Amino acid sequence: MIVRTIFKNISPLDHRYSIFEQETYNLVAPWVSEEAAILTCIKAELALVLAHLEERGTLTPALREKLIAAGASVQPEAVYAEEAKTRHNIRALVNVLKAAVPQEVAPLVHLGATSADILDTSLSYRIKGVAHHVLIPMLRTLELRLCDLAEEHARTPQVGRTHGQHAVPITLGFAVAEYVSRLGKSILEIKARANGLCGKLSGAVGAYNATSMISPDPEKLERRYLAELGLEPSEHSTQLVEPEYLLRLLLEFNTAFGIVANLADDLRNLQRSEIGELKESFADDQVGSSTMPQKRNPWNSEHVKSLWKAFSPRVVTFFMDQISEHQRDLTNSASQRFIADYIAGFAFAVKRMTSVVESLVVDKERLLQNLRGGAGGIPGGICAESAYILLAESGASGAHETIRRVTLKAERERLTFVHALSGESAALSAIEGQLKKLMLIGETETAIDYFSKPENYRGLAAEKAIDLARKYRASVG
Amino acid sequence: MIVRTIFKNISPLDHRYSIFEQETYNLVAPWVSEEAAILTCIKAELALVLAHLEERGTLTPALREKLIAAGASVQPEAVYAEEAKTRHNIRALVNVLKAAVPQEVAPLVHLGATSADILDTSLSYRIKGVAHHVLIPMLRTLELRLCDLAEEHARTPQVGRTHGQHAVPITLGFAVAEYVSRLGKSILEIKARANGLCGKLSGAVGAYNATSMISPDPEKLERRYLAELGLEPSEHSTQLVEPEYLLRLLLEFNTAFGIVANLADDLRNLQRSEIGELKESFADDQVGSSTMPQKRNPWNSEHVKSLWKAFSPRVVTFFMDQISEHQRDLTNSASQRFIADYIAGFAFAVKRMTSVVESLVVDKERLLQNLRGGAGGIPGGICAESAYILLAESGASGAHETIRRVTLKAERERLTFVHALSGESAALSAIEGQLKKLMLIGETETAIDYFSKPENYRGLAAEKAIDLARKYRASVG
Amino acid sequence: MIVRTIFKNISPLDHRYSIFEQETYNLVAPWVSEEAAILTCIKAELALVLAHLEERGTLTPALREKLIAAGASVQPEAVYAEEAKTRHNIRALVNVLKAAVPQEVAPLVHLGATSADILDTSLSYRIKGVAHHVLIPMLRTLELRLCDLAEEHARTPQVGRTHGQHAVPITLGFAVAEYVSRLGKSILEIKARANGLCGKLSGAVGAYNATSMISPDPEKLERRYLAELGLEPSEHSTQLVEPEYLLRLLLEFNTAFGIVANLADDLRNLQRSEIGELKESFADDQVGSSTMPQKRNPWNSEHVKSLWKAFSPRVVTFFMDQISEHQRDLTNSASQRFIADYIAGFAFAVKRMTSVVESLVVDKERLLQNLRGGAGGIPGGICAESAYILLAESGASGAHETIRRVTLKAERERLTFVHALSGESAALSAIEGQLKKLMLIGETETAIDYFSKPENYRGLAAEKAIDLARKYRASVG
Amino acid sequence: MIVRTIFKNISPLDHRYSIFEQETYNLVAPWVSEEAAILTCIKAELALVLAHLEERGTLTPALREKLIAAGASVQPEAVYAEEAKTRHNIRALVNVLKAAVPQEVAPLVHLGATSADILDTSLSYRIKGVAHHVLIPMLRTLELRLCDLAEEHARTPQVGRTHGQHAVPITLGFAVAEYVSRLGKSILEIKARANGLCGKLSGAVGAYNATSMISPDPEKLERRYLAELGLEPSEHSTQLVEPEYLLRLLLEFNTAFGIVANLADDLRNLQRSEIGELKESFADDQVGSSTMPQKRNPWNSEHVKSLWKAFSPRVVTFFMDQISEHQRDLTNSASQRFIADYIAGFAFAVKRMTSVVESLVVDKERLLQNLRGGAGGIPGGICAESAYILLAESGASGAHETIRRVTLKAERERLTFVHALSGESAALSAIEGQLKKLMLIGETETAIDYFSKPENYRGLAAEKAIDLARKYRASVG
Repeated sequence: MIVRTIFKNISPLDHRYSIFEQETYNLVAPWVSEEAAILTCIKAELALVLAHLEERGTLTPALREKLIAAGASVQPEAVYAEEAKTRHNIRALVNVLKAAVPQEVAPLVHLGATSADILDTSLSYRIKGVAHHVLIPMLRTLELRLCDLAEEHARTPQVGRTHGQHAVPITLGFAVAEYVSRLGKSILEIKARANGLCGKLSGAVGAYNATSMISPDPEKLERRYLAELGLEPSEHSTQLVEPEYLLRLLLEFNTAFGIVANLADDLRNLQRSEIGELKESFADDQVGSSTMPQKRNPWNSEHVKSLWKAFSPRVVTFFMDQISEHQRDLTNSASQRFIADYIAGFAFAVKRMTSVVESLVVDKERLLQNLRGGAGGIPGGICAESAYILLAESGASGAHETIRRVTLKAERERLTFVHALSGESAALSAIEGQLKKLMLIGETETAIDYFSKPENYRGLAAEKAIDLARKYRASVG
Repeated sequence: MIVRTIFKNISPLDHRYSIFEQETYNLVAPWVSEEAAILTCIKAELALVLAHLEERGTLTPALREKLIAAGASVQPEAVYAEEAKTRHNIRALVNVLKAAVPQEVAPLVHLGATSADILDTSLSYRIKGVAHHVLIPMLRTLELRLCDLAEEHARTPQVGRTHGQHAVPITLGFAVAEYVSRLGKSILEIKARANGLCGKLSGAVGAYNATSMISPDPEKLERRYLAELGLEPSEHSTQLVEPEYLLRLLLEFNTAFGIVANLADDLRNLQRSEIGELKESFADDQVGSSTMPQKRNPWNSEHVKSLWKAFSPRVVTFFMDQISEHQRDLTNSASQRFIADYIAGFAFAVKRMTSVVESLVVDKERLLQNLRGGAGGIPGGICAESAYILLAESGASGAHETIRRVTLKAERERLTFVHALSGESAALSAIEGQLKKLMLIGETETAIDYFSKPENYRGLAAEKAIDLARKYRASVG
Repeated sequence: MIVRTIFKNISPLDHRYSIFEQETYNLVAPWVSEEAAILTCIKAELALVLAHLEERGTLTPALREKLIAAGASVQPEAVYAEEAKTRHNIRALVNVLKAAVPQEVAPLVHLGATSADILDTSLSYRIKGVAHHVLIPMLRTLELRLCDLAEEHARTPQVGRTHGQHAVPITLGFAVAEYVSRLGKSILEIKARANGLCGKLSGAVGAYNATSMISPDPEKLERRYLAELGLEPSEHSTQLVEPEYLLRLLLEFNTAFGIVANLADDLRNLQRSEIGELKESFADDQVGSSTMPQKRNPWNSEHVKSLWKAFSPRVVTFFMDQISEHQRDLTNSASQRFIADYIAGFAFAVKRMTSVVESLVVDKERLLQNLRGGAGGIPGGICAESAYILLAESGASGAHETIRRVTLKAERERLTFVHALSGESAALSAIEGQLKKLMLIGETETAIDYFSKPENYRGLAAEKAIDLARKYRASVG
Repeated sequence: MIVRTIFKNISPLDHRYSIFEQETYNLVAPWVSEEAAILTCIKAELALVLAHLEERGTLTPALREKLIAAGASVQPEAVYAEEAKTRHNIRALVNVLKAAVPQEVAPLVHLGATSADILDTSLSYRIKGVAHHVLIPMLRTLELRLCDLAEEHARTPQVGRTHGQHAVPITLGFAVAEYVSRLGKSILEIKARANGLCGKLSGAVGAYNATSMISPDPEKLERRYLAELGLEPSEHSTQLVEPEYLLRLLLEFNTAFGIVANLADDLRNLQRSEIGELKESFADDQVGSSTMPQKRNPWNSEHVKSLWKAFSPRVVTFFMDQISEHQRDLTNSASQRFIADYIAGFAFAVKRMTSVVESLVVDKERLLQNLRGGAGGIPGGICAESAYILLAESGASGAHETIRRVTLKAERERLTFVHALSGESAALSAIEGQLKKLMLIGETETAIDYFSKPENYRGLAAEKAIDLARKYRASVG
């Protein structure tokens, strides 16, 4: 066993994250570590032997078990030791496996296969596995926590913001429902793309040259081989599986990553000192700053954004790896190995975001205070759109311009919006008429009453929050 | 009319390409030029008026016609002149349109909408349009030309190459079929993604605040509006349509772009002086180099690769634009406009590649000569895999190592592969036995006969070429 | 003249920006438009003729003038017309120029040169020109406006923020000085890199093959040629100038772009409704939103950030274009042309940022109010670091922990920081002693007095602002 | 000690490379591993204590030694254990260090510093260290091997290629000298940029708030602190050192990486079966393919290119990390940690390329054969440019067109270039005259003689190769 203190590792994934995010690390590593890579290649080589035996009609349950046991006996270290000699990773693995299996089946090991038949197939197997067994469940947990939040706060007033400026009211649940909807669809896409990953057994250049001399129906042999691993064959292949099956899945990972990063940005901004609508949970003995004792930083949300900055641009590499000259060049040999890092980075981001969402502290008082506070520097300025719409619907022309002038007046003379609006009596009375017509105020109420509770002007915010949470709770569950 | 000589333009798209690729320019510009952007916004604003009228039950065919005529009368210049005053592009457009429509419907113009309801919707309309009317037809033409080539050369021998080294034989049609298969699937994906583009009429922050005061069922109003434009509503929206509908389409464009770039790399390498299997068509009066009269450069294939280098990394911007704070920030205001450039760049690359493929000169003699020439520096070295497989199948152990030693010997002693193999009489005889068993040689033939036509060791190359061409000719047709 | 309404252009650079940013467009286009490209190639071809004439000793002032006149007579359209025939841009230009110059010197046109000798050289000439004549002056203007702002507000209190949380006090001038310092250095780097751009006259593969047959000292001929254009020769060249001279300049542009984008982010955040310390100037007749009359959006700062998102990732293309196989492949033929777009995009961003800075509205009242308001949700929480440092310096151990507990108490019991601190009488008295020792309060004052003006705890903020403004005003001036 | 078998690591850097590139791993890890990060922070914290002691005049050599011993006693594991409690990495480190140092100096630990004063400073220290102690020496070794190659083959004929087509002759040494020149300059840039890295001790927001209360001259205290670590202070700082010092160094790394990748592309193409001018050294027991025994793949050159594809796009992250809101946001917390991976990836690429260059097998025979073989499909076509130049220099007009027609004729009628040229007797005789005038042939020789040794038409190739090798051998030595 080649062991080493993890502090001597270079990649943060293999030191810092493997400690502080140990749970996630332990879920991901069995699919994307080097051990996983080697053991899955062994699995693929065995699948090939099984396919040959099936084709020959000589596969017995006992032999199947023996082969699986032989595979289980192979140690990654032994493969590396052999590779130091052959300088070819698959030839090394084949040599080691040949020595482990019953003598009579040894000639079938790797028979008809080129290295890439094993490597590309086992890569698809591992990525499909990590998607189904790790990433999708993690994303689903995040999605369900977002559904919870959307439902719980479906009616909690919040000011809607555009350009960082107060716009019109929404609810916190509606804001969260954005992510329920976007992430929900991405999870379904990931599932579909992961199921579409393919393998191959078409040989050195994809034309089934070798297997055509071994088997009467080499495409059937390929299907047998891949069926052992739960995969379909690539429609065409060169030495490699068509790159787009995997590429599209990676791009969808990055799409989901972007959604999560967007959520992180929203959350960290809502924690600004001046906004303070949300807070990440903060332990009593936690230190916010080594020098500023009052600090409660949104460091988890920042961390998620930072992971996005580290990993999202790596899609450029994924697109570069789409290009391979002729029946393949090897310029994806190193680059493709770092897909492992990408997947781990994505998993850590999803996990961190889930923790944030699970323990988010919502300050309802502050939410309402901000909403009623001041848009465009005008107390009650948030009512401007509703006033404009009501005025326009009453049949008045130039409604937008009338209300825009009211806001300018309020700003200059430091009035509240309602105060400034009161100066436009014709407009005010038209608005009041419209409010009564829509039954938004009672007979004895005035427009002023209506504008004193701007949070009621929230459209379908609550309904959308509830509907989307219900829908995606069902569809990703 | 603001006119200018095109040589004063900055972007190559608007000078060089608009001249030398005029046909493609003229197809693309009506969807992605500034004129297209403005006219499509007018179209969307009119769709909104129509939706309001329908909802109110006051839409007559005559009124519809009047409105369409009013829209048609608006000039981009007038909108720009107004924007210089309002410094807000949609408010400018609304002012101009209000002046153009019958007075009684003027109050309905833009009623309940925020700018993004118009802008995002009309962007989806244009991108869907350019996909269906320009890009997909262009890609289909390229795909069909590739199908032609795959079929025509399904049986034309070519050496398969990995790492730039001769590997085992394929056929030219099989090599082309790689692109038939990859590009074919991408076209189908593009079609599906383009159909999934969405619009919105949910107002300033997506909660239907304004339209809830105007209409009893604001989501129905939204559907009416979008139906006029052939679009579906975004499942959730903020001020913006969910970004992923468009993002996924753009990513699939870039995926197709990568496939085309890979083809370009293959073609330019096959035109190397030392390989010379293919040639781009070259006119008699064309100059290859300003100083080297003999040059026949693969400049069109190089050009396609270069366009890929210019445009493919722009996906990073697409991913950045996924993130918008809260109900939107405006940091996609400029960046999103350059999607137009991306689409044009992609179209020019597809068109150029199609021209190359349509007029490709195939040198069959050189293809065969290269195949038989020398792999690994060994004349006939291309036979090494078939020898190894035949030997292994004969039951010999260590077949790979045996043949590897043969190749080493051939290399050192400058022998042909067959010559060197002749020294291993046991192996040779085992191979011959196997060849007879498989009926690959007649009773009177020897292994030497078999190895003298290495192009026959081509597996299913021809069949795959034909099958894939047939399949995609039907499915993208 | 090939003219076209600009609304039919595809790139926003050539329609929208060329109108709304006409001044900047008119500065940039003469260096990076297609006309500029062609005319500069003519200039380079003439420089070559002049170099040949000088070498032959037959250059007279009259002949020089005639040649310049001949160059001035060439129209881009004529070159394009010829290229339609030759399908080679430089050969076309050469043909046109040969017809324009005096017959006796026609054989010297392009003599010994390969296309790239002209193209690469003229590209360096244009980029050096646009840097010195357009970009550096624009950047210098922005830098000087930042210096003004840093000086004017050197002592204007502002709360320092980390993680979006109130940290400790600074001044607005100090915050601006960050950009004075960063941008100042970048301007100096740009100047140096622009001066280092190189040309070449080393022929088809860089080995001076042709010129060695024409001239006894081909490197001297190269220097003569380049001296006409104010450039140095590339130390080594293939068909191309070494790519790194230009690459490093482009990377420094992008570095400056990042600094400007960072400033844009700061400015747009400081304009949030809840912060409101700064405002972009807003005209009375300007519309903030087509539906929300109160909106005053930081749209210019957002626009700058958006341009950064559009252009910054294009460095990936710059790095890709570093790689050219052997003595050159042509896969930079298209991609390199889009450097023009990058430079224009950068120029537009700098100009826009300058307008924002020039007319920025500073709300001093709000600045002070935010500072004193509440850090970590605690009124006066901004004093926590100073309290900790004073306590620690007084010799108390565990000072950080003591003050952290004070802040926790203040938060939970909704006290001001000073109120909560008052409960820790030993700490308070130690702090007071230290304040007196440092003469930060008078003998009759208390710690409470000190903490009531937290803005005084600003370190060297004012001094740094003034020093940096002074330094860079001098060095970039 | 937290140990783990390295096969369970996720990043290829920490499993595959740490084994197969152990030597390089062992050089890099002591600078960029987590252990290195922690130990360097300890070093920085001690430097701060020393600076305080110096300022107070109480630093004795004995105390210095005690402190260094205390630092040396800290184990990374202890720091991690503490961080699990504080959830703040620097506060954890401070707690551990305080317990280790003599009681009387414990209050000075971290006094006046914010975490970033330690973290950013120690990052600069480590990156400067790895540049000077690891990367520059590795790059220098590669550079010197390239110098060797350039000198050794300064006169070895090779065909110059553009667009993958034979152009005109060069020498192998000249081709290599391209990289001598480009890489040489990059090494010098890296050295300068590494020396320019900065640290800081300006506190939470960069205004020296805390240290102003501790020291009469906080900038002097900062210089003392940094002098202990061999660094200069950042000209301005927020919570962070100005990002551009480090950014520019990373960009120069990536520039050097691009040069190395370009070399890799050249080398792998020159190893194509059809070209075969160079070969990577190949051990006797090495396996080229698991199924094709004859394969000798350029896998090391491919590997270098692949590393470039994996790491080069990460510059996008570097540019993103330039932006930090206000006095800092924490969205570089994770992303910046992966600079470690980048540096390791770069180091592995440089090392691999050095091995390739050191053991490159040059096939001189093949080099000459390719040169004389056939350009543009025409045997002897390589002579076209020299023929054109000679003809033009003889005073003939339309020389380029004349020779272009000769090549067309040769191509169509399958003639050698010389054969086709012979048909143009006027041209031939003019050329001969010119050759004699230039003394390139003797009186009794003909043009045919000259064109039979096209390798002589090599310009200054040999001289440039020798000069550049000499220059850079001296300047990077």
